[in-house]
Amino acid sequence: MDRALARILMDTALGRRPADLVVTHATVLNVFTGELLPDQTIAVKAGHFAAVGADLSLARGPETMVFDAAGQIAIPGLVDGHTHQAPRLLPETLIAAVLASGTTTIITELEGMAFVGGTEGLRVFLDALRDQPIKVFATLPPMAALHPALEEQAPTLAEAEQLLARADIVGLGEIPWANLLRDAPRLLDLVALARRLGKPPQGHSAGARGARLQAYFASGIGSCHEPITPDEVRERLRLGVHTMVRHGGVRRDIDHVAPLWAEPLDWRRLILVTDSVDARGLLADGYLDAVVQRAIDTGLAPVRAIQAATLNVAEHFRLDHRLGAIAPGREADLALLPDLRTLRPTLVLSRGQLIAREGQPLVQARRHRYPPWLYRTLRLPEVTADWFRLPAAQQTNRLRALAFGEGLVTGEAWVEGGAADGAIALLPDADLAKLACIERQTPTPRRFVGLAQGFGLRAGACATTSGWDAACITAIGVNDADLALAVNRVRALQGGVVVCAGGRVLAECATPVGGLWSEEPVAAVAAAEERLEGALRELGVRHPRPLLALDILTTGAIPHLRLTPLGYVRLRDGALLGLTDPA
Amino acid sequence: MDRALARILMDTALGRRPADLVVTHATVLNVFTGELLPDQTIAVKAGHFAAVGADLSLARGPETMVFDAAGQIAIPGLVDGHTHQAPRLLPETLIAAVLASGTTTIITELEGMAFVGGTEGLRVFLDALRDQPIKVFATLPPMAALHPALEEQAPTLAEAEQLLARADIVGLGEIPWANLLRDAPRLLDLVALARRLGKPPQGHSAGARGARLQAYFASGIGSCHEPITPDEVRERLRLGVHTMVRHGGVRRDIDHVAPLWAEPLDWRRLILVTDSVDARGLLADGYLDAVVQRAIDTGLAPVRAIQAATLNVAEHFRLDHRLGAIAPGREADLALLPDLRTLRPTLVLSRGQLIAREGQPLVQARRHRYPPWLYRTLRLPEVTADWFRLPAAQQTNRLRALAFGEGLVTGEAWVEGGAADGAIALLPDADLAKLACIERQTPTPRRFVGLAQGFGLRAGACATTSGWDAACITAIGVNDADLALAVNRVRALQGGVVVCAGGRVLAECATPVGGLWSEEPVAAVAAAEERLEGALRELGVRHPRPLLALDILTTGAIPHLRLTPLGYVRLRDGALLGLTDPA
Repeated sequence: MDRALARILMDTALGRRPADLVVTHATVLNVFTGELLPDQTIAVKAGHFAAVGADLSLARGPETMVFDAAGQIAIPGLVDGHTHQAPRLLPETLIAAVLASGTTTIITELEGMAFVGGTEGLRVFLDALRDQPIKVFATLPPMAALHPALEEQAPTLAEAEQLLARADIVGLGEIPWANLLRDAPRLLDLVALARRLGKPPQGHSAGARGARLQAYFASGIGSCHEPITPDEVRERLRLGVHTMVRHGGVRRDIDHVAPLWAEPLDWRRLILVTDSVDARGLLADGYLDAVVQRAIDTGLAPVRAIQAATLNVAEHFRLDHRLGAIAPGREADLALLPDLRTLRPTLVLSRGQLIAREGQPLVQARRHRYPPWLYRTLRLPEVTADWFRLPAAQQTNRLRALAFGEGLVTGEAWVEGGAADGAIALLPDADLAKLACIERQTPTPRRFVGLAQGFGLRAGACATTSGWDAACITAIGVNDADLALAVNRVRALQGGVVVCAGGRVLAECATPVGGLWSEEPVAAVAAAEERLEGALRELGVRHPRPLLALDILTTGAIPHLRLTPLGYVRLRDGALLGLTDPA
Repeated sequence: MDRALARILMDTALGRRPADLVVTHATVLNVFTGELLPDQTIAVKAGHFAAVGADLSLARGPETMVFDAAGQIAIPGLVDGHTHQAPRLLPETLIAAVLASGTTTIITELEGMAFVGGTEGLRVFLDALRDQPIKVFATLPPMAALHPALEEQAPTLAEAEQLLARADIVGLGEIPWANLLRDAPRLLDLVALARRLGKPPQGHSAGARGARLQAYFASGIGSCHEPITPDEVRERLRLGVHTMVRHGGVRRDIDHVAPLWAEPLDWRRLILVTDSVDARGLLADGYLDAVVQRAIDTGLAPVRAIQAATLNVAEHFRLDHRLGAIAPGREADLALLPDLRTLRPTLVLSRGQLIAREGQPLVQARRHRYPPWLYRTLRLPEVTADWFRLPAAQQTNRLRALAFGEGLVTGEAWVEGGAADGAIALLPDADLAKLACIERQTPTPRRFVGLAQGFGLRAGACATTSGWDAACITAIGVNDADLALAVNRVRALQGGVVVCAGGRVLAECATPVGGLWSEEPVAAVAAAEERLEGALRELGVRHPRPLLALDILTTGAIPHLRLTPLGYVRLRDGALLGLTDPA
């Protein structure tokens, strides 16, 4: 807001200038007081609310649009306080998909493109988010990797200061608690810097409780989106943490947390988030609207649920003077609902622009032009099957494997190694596969080949470039030739996911933009994901979400044994481990 | 918080370092959830809370102090979100007076010293607030004067940017709504700048409602401490304004607002403030503790009342990661109460330091050394009785007078002028006095002499340098010789208040520091104020608070007719008016 805009809004409120748009007879949810106020008039001018009330003396001109909202509830546009770019979708594809949902602000992590392109990658991502029909803000990735040797792309403190000063960066991205609790001067400096600049540092304290949780938040971290039980939510709220309950593509925690809704707590620090929604989730369920709907359906009072996706988020990010409420001076982001319990907007305004009616978008997301270098980020050489050969161990045939479990958490397992031709061979019926992690942006990639247990793969291989918090190819397979084929096909596509077996590609999805994003629409990506998972199931995989299970192997955000191009990393102590080192 | 401090707090929470101080068995008011949590342990290290909970694994060393708080309630130190330096007291005198009260943070306006010394005056004030036993933050005075010609001391936008970037300046000071609604590019630029820098602009919307109120807050103003009825509080809360209800030296609004407490509103934007407490108020009632106590006594739930003087304030000023709660990472500001309804702290911690027990301060405020120039701010020449002579008007004997009312609001009145020796003479029995405003910091002061009606003064004169939002001498009197005597005595004292009659000084209080502050303790100033008001009553003054009534004549914050060295100003239209100009 500058002086000229302030003057325009003031004049509009005073009835000296005609409003651009007037909503009449709405029942407004006042997120500040928690009241439902009947028969309100809402005046919009220059993309902002100029006045909201029962008895306004507004001027209307010939250009003033008027919507009669009799019988409907006006709520502020929803604000997603924590998400990640939907896997394999372009930013503008995700934006297009949520236009009709009532979400008018997204605050997204940027880490994927940052691991690919460093600060230049960040800038491209931020450029893509600009001038879209809804607002997308970002958090600066702290680039906490599984091992310090993998943090080469991390911004210096001076770079971080420049980036955090940007208006479109509203926080510091999530730092897993284990990283911060270790000796982590770089990360603690980032947290302090972000606090000094008024950009709240985002947290990730999955599984932490008691002393560790207290220590983690004593550092200045301000949020967490990882609590999955009522106790975990309550413990974080009590520590003053903006506590985000998520229900999206990675996890759906609301049903588990719901028993808490009955407690008479002050909910001002509760926030509902997606933490990312994937292509199939967007089609099947929607976006943040589905999260709020689920909270209401499980017993959270509708007013509290909507506050948790509007005002509470805006307050956390120090944006509450700009958005998150229907009030003078705020950007005119609004959804009309048929009733307070039904998150199906009949009309959506974003910055005063009508962007959707009755579930149909009325505007298009801006198609961004990505720079040519972003389509050439796989610079590793063609690989051969012998990259996946495991020379037989000298002193032991006990081998360390990454064990897949029921959910997303992995473990450390010891397995017997067989041998053939001086190399380790996979024992049949032991549900073992080779698991490789290969750097992808250099002609001389560092790489590691280990073992996976419990994935179910009985033939073929799968390779992907969408591993979290790393710019690598993750590949899993029971056949070295298929492993090489999958990796080479991914390389030829300049990114994506490939499943192959018997020397043939069975399914694939290309993501050539930075090796991460497809240029296809949501439905095409969703269909490709279905085909990929179908192919994996055909090959014996039992994991319910095999693509996600592979993608998260490279992040420190999920325990316990993790995968890097340098070896396994055990999250508990940060130890970098090989196939045969002692435990 | 920097990296080293974060590390120390984390290590303390993890039990790897001994705490400095541990409070045990406290019932803690959790201001985030609104819960009262029994049997809590609170660990303090390096001036901050490191951990708070029921089941901590802390380390204690030989130096660790332990307080058993069994049976007591721990609340965060109170935060006064809007005040002004107490009239005639030094900053350190006010600080000393509140040490035992449970207030550990004060956010004060700075306007007085800014009108006296411009940016240099501000810096002196800020220096005095530094390194005190409690925290005092400030808001940058926008220097909105009654007339643009009186805004010479106002900071440029570049100066304002520098000042707003300071860590000890946490907001932009209050701007009266009438100033902002007029053509006010300088003020609108300041509001926008403050918002951009994350320093919320403070408001003052006394009496405004409807369209004007909406327009005012559409500009980006974030608070108001002027609502005096339940409707006015509710209207502001609905606009998303951090709504401050005051109960202090200027007004006591809680009793009038109290019917609102019964409504089931979300109270997160309610704030309780003093808006300044004078010397006698400090002695008789206390400070912010008295405000919170009154809110509780009039029916506001104690938890809500304490939130309104802790977390809510911290959130408004974007300080909630630093203070306003008993939680890891926050400064260790805390008061122990005998019960939740009795704001009489048995113990006060400020930044982890024990500053008071059982109502007695245990530390001293730092005596600041003020620069010599600040003791020489009255630079006007000696005045003579003829300064107060009003030449008889040519065409009319209708004269404009400033009319005192019941409270603080003044009006515009027309009175008959008598004449003697070619000058206007006061008609007996008309309750008229001469009212003068004289610049005080220049050897060639601009000055204005008008008339006051209804003050009750029957003999003598009173002069004062403590007029708000101006660096002037305000004088009222029925005798030109006594007017000159009072002004000259104030000049000799280098500031203060003087009452005289019949050529004799009847009472006085010197305020030689910037012409505003006495170096005497609270009790001495309170006694001097009693003597001054007693003398005025002897001279016939009926106004219940005559010193305050005179001080506020020079501010735009209170309607309707105001006083400047250039003439009257009518607040409604900003018109500068003389004694005889047409209405």
